[in-house]
Amino acid sequence: MASGQSSPDPYPMSGGDGPNSYFQNSVHQKSIVEATKEMINEAIRDKLALNSPSNAFNIADFGCSVGPNTFIAVQNIIEAVELKYHGNHQNHQSLEFQVFFNDHTNNDFNTLFKNLHHNHPRKFFAAGVPGTFHGRLFPKSSLHFGHSSFALQWLSKTPSEVLDTKSPAWNKGSIHCTGFHTEVAEAYSSQFKNDMETFLNARAQELVNGGLLVIIMPALQDGVLLSQSSIGVTFDLLGSCLQNMAQSGIISQEKVEAFNLPIYISPAKGLEALLQRNGFFSVEKIDRITSNMNTNTLTAQFLTSQLRAVTEELIKGHFGSEIVDAVFELFNIKLSENWFSIMDTKNQKFMDLFIILSRNFSD
Amino acid sequence: MASGQSSPDPYPMSGGDGPNSYFQNSVHQKSIVEATKEMINEAIRDKLALNSPSNAFNIADFGCSVGPNTFIAVQNIIEAVELKYHGNHQNHQSLEFQVFFNDHTNNDFNTLFKNLHHNHPRKFFAAGVPGTFHGRLFPKSSLHFGHSSFALQWLSKTPSEVLDTKSPAWNKGSIHCTGFHTEVAEAYSSQFKNDMETFLNARAQELVNGGLLVIIMPALQDGVLLSQSSIGVTFDLLGSCLQNMAQSGIISQEKVEAFNLPIYISPAKGLEALLQRNGFFSVEKIDRITSNMNTNTLTAQFLTSQLRAVTEELIKGHFGSEIVDAVFELFNIKLSENWFSIMDTKNQKFMDLFIILSRNFSD
Repeated sequence: MASGQSSPDPYPMSGGDGPNSYFQNSVHQKSIVEATKEMINEAIRDKLALNSPSNAFNIADFGCSVGPNTFIAVQNIIEAVELKYHGNHQNHQSLEFQVFFNDHTNNDFNTLFKNLHHNHPRKFFAAGVPGTFHGRLFPKSSLHFGHSSFALQWLSKTPSEVLDTKSPAWNKGSIHCTGFHTEVAEAYSSQFKNDMETFLNARAQELVNGGLLVIIMPALQDGVLLSQSSIGVTFDLLGSCLQNMAQSGIISQEKVEAFNLPIYISPAKGLEALLQRNGFFSVEKIDRITSNMNTNTLTAQFLTSQLRAVTEELIKGHFGSEIVDAVFELFNIKLSENWFSIMDTKNQKFMDLFIILSRNFSD
Repeated sequence: MASGQSSPDPYPMSGGDGPNSYFQNSVHQKSIVEATKEMINEAIRDKLALNSPSNAFNIADFGCSVGPNTFIAVQNIIEAVELKYHGNHQNHQSLEFQVFFNDHTNNDFNTLFKNLHHNHPRKFFAAGVPGTFHGRLFPKSSLHFGHSSFALQWLSKTPSEVLDTKSPAWNKGSIHCTGFHTEVAEAYSSQFKNDMETFLNARAQELVNGGLLVIIMPALQDGVLLSQSSIGVTFDLLGSCLQNMAQSGIISQEKVEAFNLPIYISPAKGLEALLQRNGFFSVEKIDRITSNMNTNTLTAQFLTSQLRAVTEELIKGHFGSEIVDAVFELFNIKLSENWFSIMDTKNQKFMDLFIILSRNFSD
């Protein structure tokens, strides 16, 4: 047992609740969390197979950020569990919920707790758990339900080969895994597999037998490259902003070449195969999520704010905080200029998956 | 079950790790925590009576602040539990520790987690639990060991009567419970009893039968009034600073009259009676702590910093942040001027108690 961490944490979503915060700029994620309410309900009704539910039901959200989406997800889970045990057990009133909110140590837990505090009355005991979810965070068999929404596409690190100018996997001229460069794609894919395995193996220890793990994450339609999807086009645009700024001498070319997003959007089939291969869990369901978000009202400014909320800390850490405003001003201009071609790819080759895994009874 | 909170939290210890932080200014508390290592060890060896220790041992520190003292205390507890089960059980290696760090929602958990992160390798899984300990924070029977050090002398609020100019308990001309004014002392004492009861009753629900609750807190020698002790003299001095500043027109007289410290130092006998009366716990031990802190090297600046770390947020919240520096500059001057008379009372009529309570098996 060793939960001590020696490596520095990656960058979190933007903290606080100001105009550039994740709190104010996670509408897409929110619409997805809301769209999954009924799916969570069904998962718990049909797939949760706890031998003997004790008086405490422990839930963890992995990659919770600062709210509010994590609170909505948790609320949905608790309502579904209450509904299930209301039907099946007479002693449902004695069931108490403990919810663990996990994110990196440098996540803004103060803001998370402030938001939680304002979010009352609540039906659960709350705790924040700092640290990487690519390792153990909880004692053995201490959780009944795990949840992770829009967190596992973040890699624990950018694969070092893609930044190595001497490697065949050097990702020259790009800041992400476009999909066009096989060696780069393999380096990213390999890091992703490794990260998914460390995540699943740690959760396998922490979840009780019969417990559930719900994962919500983006995936690519099979045969589609990331740069052919809306999100890939967005990353390409961000990369071109950094290139332009390097050409203007605002940032150094070397800094740009040493920057790659630690994000991997897996092809759906590859993800499914990876989940099937893990012996600790059974894949109960993989569904595509249809959200109710109205994309007609989207604006360039809105999408810029959304991207900024999730990449600002990363850019700040690499290039310095003084250039962040300029990056996203330029991004906003470029996005407006290319609006129709980008909107054209939106939602076509890109999807959000709802995955239910159940912890096998045999180890 | 309802852990939602509707009332605002009191003021925490000063956050961060700067020169005025609690992190840098809790040396007295630290010397006490270190002095109790052997007492903790004995308590766990002789008094911890768990029926069947499962694979997880859950510890909570109530009023943890931002470290480092809470880490030292937790380390002592874990080492003692390991020692006990090393001797008694063959399967001690499978015992995993989960530690819950509790403090008010507005405690600086970001700093706590940063300090925790730097404090590796560590032998436990960690979680932060925001919220008042005068109510439930954990599911029933989910903790094996509770710890609270220098937290329970803080009241959940200043009793309203002492600020009410029409009440016989109006505490005119003082900012704390000096002991000279019977009605004031009764109002403070009554609030303290109420707070201790809500604390103990909540912990009684959360601790398993046979689990231990260790409390470290200051108390007065019987027959001594607070203003006759070193800490009372210090509070009187702080009050006189505020009075002087009101006379100079820097702050308003009304503001000073509306300010009383929510701190109560109980007479030792009264505290013992209160603990004996609570039916959920057995009082296993109440000992006076002898610390190794060298008081000869104390300076006025040092004591000023110590007082500032624990009262700054309170003063800021009541009078505004702009006057804080001036208050403690004046305090430092007055303390230097009265140094020998204050040092004379030091450690004479004031003590720190080490209390062990065990959770009764009968409810």
